[in-house]
Amino acid sequence: MEYFSGHISELIEQLASLPGIGSKTAQRLAFYIISMPVDKVERLSKALVETRKNVHYCKTCCTLTDADECPICSSPKRDHSTIMIVETDRDLAAYEKTGKYEGVYHVLHGAISPMLGIGPDDIKLRELMQRLQSDEVKEVIVATNSSLEGETTAMYISKLIKPTGIKVTRIASGVPVGGDLENIDEVTLLRALEGRVQL
Amino acid sequence: MEYFSGHISELIEQLASLPGIGSKTAQRLAFYIISMPVDKVERLSKALVETRKNVHYCKTCCTLTDADECPICSSPKRDHSTIMIVETDRDLAAYEKTGKYEGVYHVLHGAISPMLGIGPDDIKLRELMQRLQSDEVKEVIVATNSSLEGETTAMYISKLIKPTGIKVTRIASGVPVGGDLENIDEVTLLRALEGRVQL
Repeated sequence: MEYFSGHISELIEQLASLPGIGSKTAQRLAFYIISMPVDKVERLSKALVETRKNVHYCKTCCTLTDADECPICSSPKRDHSTIMIVETDRDLAAYEKTGKYEGVYHVLHGAISPMLGIGPDDIKLRELMQRLQSDEVKEVIVATNSSLEGETTAMYISKLIKPTGIKVTRIASGVPVGGDLENIDEVTLLRALEGRVQL
Repeated sequence: MEYFSGHISELIEQLASLPGIGSKTAQRLAFYIISMPVDKVERLSKALVETRKNVHYCKTCCTLTDADECPICSSPKRDHSTIMIVETDRDLAAYEKTGKYEGVYHVLHGAISPMLGIGPDDIKLRELMQRLQSDEVKEVIVATNSSLEGETTAMYISKLIKPTGIKVTRIASGVPVGGDLENIDEVTLLRALEGRVQL
């Protein structure tokens, strides 16, 4: 990077430290930023710091929010007796985009992974168990990813919750809609077979 | 994006307006930024504004620099009688990385493109002609891209400079080193044939 001036090198270096941004992309971004109007750069710069400083976990569901409680948790229109457990905020957003789920969420911010040294205490499980102490909750839908970590977490959660008598369900895994059978891996095909429903 | 809080949505929107960053990447970056230490976010934020405000064109070669004149133009070790003309600062960096070019540069910041409405006055050609008025310059190497715009610009520059008596050369085009002939387009193959040299 020593071919660019000090400021440019510094910016390229910082951009390249972000995930998924390699040194070529960082270069392209840095030059684009230099060509941007000053006020737009200032807005972006401010948005970075303001977001970092003002966003924190919702006191109920642990999603990221500006407020004390997120819009979903504070909405009287949502069904507060059904909690969907997801790994990340992006998974929550994916389900919200369907527009059909009316319950509330709980964001774990990770999944149990002995490989990466992430245990039950490193994700928001304590907060979940506290929430379940209110007798309002009737069903917990475990929507962790269909990966090894996601499945491990789902198993752990189901064992944790079962003694409380609350219904625990897991989202179905199977062939994606529009998926071509021939392109789908065997594990998914077996799951789809096991989970077959009567027509 | 309405599934995220105000600050997050705003940040995602601004990141997604950068070139090559789609909405999924912008989401991923925004969540990463929220998880970064505050001081790192502040450094990035500052780097954006400082770079935008302090970087400007070198008074000689129009490359982007913090100083009045860039390190290459102000170096007594470089051969100031040879000027390589490139389209962008990134092209300059690419040639600097070879470590073999000892002359100086001139950055056009674009190429002539009638399609995009970019004419000779929109790139740094006037600055180039002013430089050539010093009798120090012996050779101008045109290293614009090998695209339609790059070639048009090269032709235009050669016509512009020829009357001054300064030698004008064009970098060779042909088969890239390590390139497999069967995967190379016909135009390049013909160029490589035309430009053949005696062994």
